[in-house]
Amino acid sequence: MEFKISKDLLDELEVLIQENKEKEVLDLLQDIHFADIAEIMGEMQSHEAIYIFNALDSEKTAEILLELDEEVREKILRSLSAKEIAEEIDELSTDDAADIIAELPQSRKEEVISELEDVEHAKDIVDLLRYDEDSAGGLMAKELVKVNENWNVLTCVKEMRAQAENVSRVHSIYVVDDENRLKGRLSLKDLLTTSTKTPISEVYIPKVDYVKVNTENVEVARIMQKYDLEAIPVVDELGRLVGRITIDDVVDVIKEEADKDYQLAAGISQDVEADDSILELTKARLPWLVLALFGGFVSVRVLGIYEPAMEEHRNLFFFTPLIAAMAGNVGVQSSAIIVQGLANNALSGSLLNRLLKELSLSLLNGCILSLILMLGSHFLLGIDFQTGMTVSLALLSVIIMASLIGTFIPIILDKYGIDPALATGPFITTSNDIMGIIIFFTIAKAILGF
Amino acid sequence: MEFKISKDLLDELEVLIQENKEKEVLDLLQDIHFADIAEIMGEMQSHEAIYIFNALDSEKTAEILLELDEEVREKILRSLSAKEIAEEIDELSTDDAADIIAELPQSRKEEVISELEDVEHAKDIVDLLRYDEDSAGGLMAKELVKVNENWNVLTCVKEMRAQAENVSRVHSIYVVDDENRLKGRLSLKDLLTTSTKTPISEVYIPKVDYVKVNTENVEVARIMQKYDLEAIPVVDELGRLVGRITIDDVVDVIKEEADKDYQLAAGISQDVEADDSILELTKARLPWLVLALFGGFVSVRVLGIYEPAMEEHRNLFFFTPLIAAMAGNVGVQSSAIIVQGLANNALSGSLLNRLLKELSLSLLNGCILSLILMLGSHFLLGIDFQTGMTVSLALLSVIIMASLIGTFIPIILDKYGIDPALATGPFITTSNDIMGIIIFFTIAKAILGF
Repeated sequence: MEFKISKDLLDELEVLIQENKEKEVLDLLQDIHFADIAEIMGEMQSHEAIYIFNALDSEKTAEILLELDEEVREKILRSLSAKEIAEEIDELSTDDAADIIAELPQSRKEEVISELEDVEHAKDIVDLLRYDEDSAGGLMAKELVKVNENWNVLTCVKEMRAQAENVSRVHSIYVVDDENRLKGRLSLKDLLTTSTKTPISEVYIPKVDYVKVNTENVEVARIMQKYDLEAIPVVDELGRLVGRITIDDVVDVIKEEADKDYQLAAGISQDVEADDSILELTKARLPWLVLALFGGFVSVRVLGIYEPAMEEHRNLFFFTPLIAAMAGNVGVQSSAIIVQGLANNALSGSLLNRLLKELSLSLLNGCILSLILMLGSHFLLGIDFQTGMTVSLALLSVIIMASLIGTFIPIILDKYGIDPALATGPFITTSNDIMGIIIFFTIAKAILGF
Repeated sequence: MEFKISKDLLDELEVLIQENKEKEVLDLLQDIHFADIAEIMGEMQSHEAIYIFNALDSEKTAEILLELDEEVREKILRSLSAKEIAEEIDELSTDDAADIIAELPQSRKEEVISELEDVEHAKDIVDLLRYDEDSAGGLMAKELVKVNENWNVLTCVKEMRAQAENVSRVHSIYVVDDENRLKGRLSLKDLLTTSTKTPISEVYIPKVDYVKVNTENVEVARIMQKYDLEAIPVVDELGRLVGRITIDDVVDVIKEEADKDYQLAAGISQDVEADDSILELTKARLPWLVLALFGGFVSVRVLGIYEPAMEEHRNLFFFTPLIAAMAGNVGVQSSAIIVQGLANNALSGSLLNRLLKELSLSLLNGCILSLILMLGSHFLLGIDFQTGMTVSLALLSVIIMASLIGTFIPIILDKYGIDPALATGPFITTSNDIMGIIIFFTIAKAILGF
């Protein structure tokens, strides 16, 4: 059950491919899961990956296609004719099929669709392509099991058998009226234990959770997670049942969303991966660094204003990186916890309570840290008492200020409909750096007078 | 389908509770999903939450108990007798039951278990309590549908009906031998379409993915996600089928893991939420801040060494926060992308390739940023050409160094089995701050000579 790609396996495959020993390649891949074959193909050169793909039979290749990294998939698809792609697509469920077709260049899209054998399948796919990929419509599949409220249990079971052919996993049986409007759901258990002549309208459960086609995918994920749903039906504007979303599709949304927040906190602005190209990685990182650099310009300016202090209080300038760093760290901590609370809908209580809590928290942290700084600057760094006091007092003020800024910026951004995760990372670090330095020197000036 | 707790609803409930109008309270909550009732209870005072809990019938309360925040649940459970808790537990599936019992104080645990009515259920729960909560054993439920390989389809269907009573959602039918060892699985579809006399041994699929009881929960999540599984059987050391994990349990693991990495990146060391107590929040945040503070001491010391430069090159000290901040930002970016790659198992290629890639990336970013700094220091800040050159060159070197440190520390930690996410956030910021300042002044000294 545990699979790690071994260097040996890769080497062996490469040699076999070079010698064109197709049978041996297939034997070697025989017992390997398609997700692992996709991983292996990702590690190989394009022509080797294409070789493996062509050697495997189409039942396996369609699944592999799904699991491949986007760039490898693109290469494989480019090596296939429209007809060959259509054959792969015919094996896939509508949602996966639509995802793959959406990645094709416009002209190929139409070619591939026209080559699809199953007309119903093709129609469903075209239908799905209309929806925004970040909406429930973009997540849903057309495959589902539905029954009419006017049928009886017997008709139902018969119809279901036919429908179930196309549905790999039956989660729920949905009940619709003559207009295809969603009325409720049926449990398999009830169906099995009820007399065959009972009308469906008497046994179905009229309460059913659903989402609309245009609901955002993040919202769909939130609902399914909160209500512990394994599948949820999707209805259009008129309440007609148009598709079904299963939890495995939503897992990816949840993962992506969490990864995105993490990246924003680390100052990476697009959805990139370590294996993306240098250009893409630069585009994702550079903007934040430029922002931080301009923030740095401001701090240079601010420090220039306090140049006179250099005559008598040189020590102060040794402490500026410390103060700035602490301001940044505290700010990121406060904002991260708020951003996560907002993302998980877990913030309760009023804004005033939140302010008071953050205030007491930063007071507590600030007092402890200032005390350490006071002792440390005296005993470890040999700084004079007056400067030590000044720096410690400044640290306390800076921590309080930084945590309040860190708390409020995300809340305010969220109020105005901006992704609060933007406020974490370089943005808050930079602004808190500058604020920290200003507060530090203002306090120092007041105490030491320069 | 969309639910937001309204202030009006809360106020109305509070008034009704005060006036002890139980029927009206129940009417108001009638159509509200249990997950939402749990949310409402989380917003109320303890006695109000307890009032609502007692008013509802036990079918609903067991589910609500599961959905409550841990601290609210603790309060509710404290207000209940062992017998009452046992009644709630009897309604839950074994995995959820075990999770709730695990939260009780030791003495109450035993009391509650002894009050459980269903002896089989109690045995299963006690069994589950033995496993580490971060392992497959801690995630799994005992409820599953299994059949013996020696049965025929007819016996199977009969037995399954009885078993399915206890299983809310049938994902797979597992096939075992006489010793209860996992042999394979059956699809419902095959079962429905095969003649009733066929022996199971002829129709089952011998290839089945499984995990061992002691597999880490994060690994279980990875496997289920990678192979798109909705449920996975769990076997003990002897290969005997002991439980089953469903995707909805794993969704929480995935979410928690992603949240944890995010928090580590932001310098928060425990799994805390915005609504936790001040003491818990302090415990999670303070260690990192102390670390950063001591890092700050080092930077004060380092700057002290370069005090002589203050005579002629004061400007350099204005630039230290800028250099330190850039080093920190670059380091966090590099490490975050590696940590995420490690977490998603998405890092391919050799260490050398990774090094070369990061090197070219940081060269590219570094050159652009140094150029901006050179122009900016001249035109925006009015710094002399020689200092501008020095600072820009230092920035380039610092960026390259910071990105290499940010790349390698997580990889090295991971090699030694330490969570690489520890390397992001304050840890990398602080060490890069110091390194940045040292490199900056070393270069400045070499060029400007002081």
